[in-house]
Amino acid sequence: MCQLLGMNCNVPTDIVFSFTGFATRGGRTDAHKDGWGIAFFEGSGVRHFVDYEAAIASPIAELIKRYPIKSKNVIAHIRKATHGHIALENCHPFVRELWGRYWVFAHNGDLKDFTPTLDGAFRPVGNTDSEWAFCYILQQLRRRFGDALPSQPALTAALRELTTEIAAYGTFNMMLSDGSALFTHCSTRLFFIVRQYPFAEARLSDEDVRVDFSQVTTPNDRVAIIVTEPLTANERWTAFQPGEFKVFVDGQPIAP
Amino acid sequence: MCQLLGMNCNVPTDIVFSFTGFATRGGRTDAHKDGWGIAFFEGSGVRHFVDYEAAIASPIAELIKRYPIKSKNVIAHIRKATHGHIALENCHPFVRELWGRYWVFAHNGDLKDFTPTLDGAFRPVGNTDSEWAFCYILQQLRRRFGDALPSQPALTAALRELTTEIAAYGTFNMMLSDGSALFTHCSTRLFFIVRQYPFAEARLSDEDVRVDFSQVTTPNDRVAIIVTEPLTANERWTAFQPGEFKVFVDGQPIAP
Repeated sequence: MCQLLGMNCNVPTDIVFSFTGFATRGGRTDAHKDGWGIAFFEGSGVRHFVDYEAAIASPIAELIKRYPIKSKNVIAHIRKATHGHIALENCHPFVRELWGRYWVFAHNGDLKDFTPTLDGAFRPVGNTDSEWAFCYILQQLRRRFGDALPSQPALTAALRELTTEIAAYGTFNMMLSDGSALFTHCSTRLFFIVRQYPFAEARLSDEDVRVDFSQVTTPNDRVAIIVTEPLTANERWTAFQPGEFKVFVDGQPIAP
Repeated sequence: MCQLLGMNCNVPTDIVFSFTGFATRGGRTDAHKDGWGIAFFEGSGVRHFVDYEAAIASPIAELIKRYPIKSKNVIAHIRKATHGHIALENCHPFVRELWGRYWVFAHNGDLKDFTPTLDGAFRPVGNTDSEWAFCYILQQLRRRFGDALPSQPALTAALRELTTEIAAYGTFNMMLSDGSALFTHCSTRLFFIVRQYPFAEARLSDEDVRVDFSQVTTPNDRVAIIVTEPLTANERWTAFQPGEFKVFVDGQPIAP
């Protein structure tokens, strides 16, 4: 199994605090040492970092902890290999282009016998069930909507259907973003928190690190963090329900 | 205009020496300060780093200069914006997936009125002529060969035709790789060198850095470096002819 971390904000925000706690689970406070990755949207571009080294031993993870890249949508993943061997091409998140946008995807869980036919428009490069599921989602979106980017409600409805369909094959905790929203599905375990005015201090559970968000924010900032296991002990995280699909826009979940 | 750097090897090799000289042109010894990028194949996976900061000021470029990532195919680019504003989505190299492989592309030069119809399978995310050309190349490959990866001779013949077609619209110095070969086209300016046994010392032109390759290689290693302007002053670089298309495999150009 693996762990997921997502961030969705109304203004570009760095993820240094959350990633620092999360990366510690990549080999120190937890056993997810078979690679890691993170992708940041910046405008319509994406910075994509993947590594098959443990996050705690990776020079690139060290850089991400020191370098405050600001983004409105981030997806990160630490991997404990189940399907697919330890290799760069099997590290999440995965990136593809559809409708002139980059799409970023990461998955936690196992799918059993999920090998729907892929028509060739999107094909896995590695050999994980996760990348197969990502290719299937994009293929089905393109089949349904053709060459035109759908409205967000139409896209949301389609993704809700697709993730429910895939989740029937096993455990499908997942995060997906096209840079405009963060789409999430929970099979078993996912939590979120929305940080907004008035901001308070937060303390990581995995590292002796704390930050007073009131000192580094403006009253208009709003940030949603979504993660497999809560990152802080002194804040109230909300658990997803099994089977729940949530879309985050501008730092908060939108109404279903 | 921009500058290109490519490496193709028979064993995974780091590009720290060449990238150090090349990155210096990204704002210090030359004016290519509107972003940079580099992509490394590792197995079938790709590490992709792009930045809209000047290479000489980028923390990520600093990391690449210190961290010896080993790869058989690397493409790097430093950008001086002509088409497309300074933004992450306009930084080369670009990455797409076709036939279950990643393809990496970078371009130096300008194309005039090159806007062939794109059928939607591959669409630009940014607004450069370069990314448009890349999407067109992949679309035409898929149209010609369908869902099956062609043989390397068939692929080479197709790419030779496509690059010649595109080059009629302006200047098209380009590098393309699917991880198995490095395909290059020269409109105006491109040089290459093959380093192999017996290895000698090389001295960068842009930095006071030298390396004795005989100390860091085995007799079986072979490395081709392809670049817009030669990186060393004490080695003999071969100039491409205008209109020349070359394919590098296992560290050397293959017969046309």
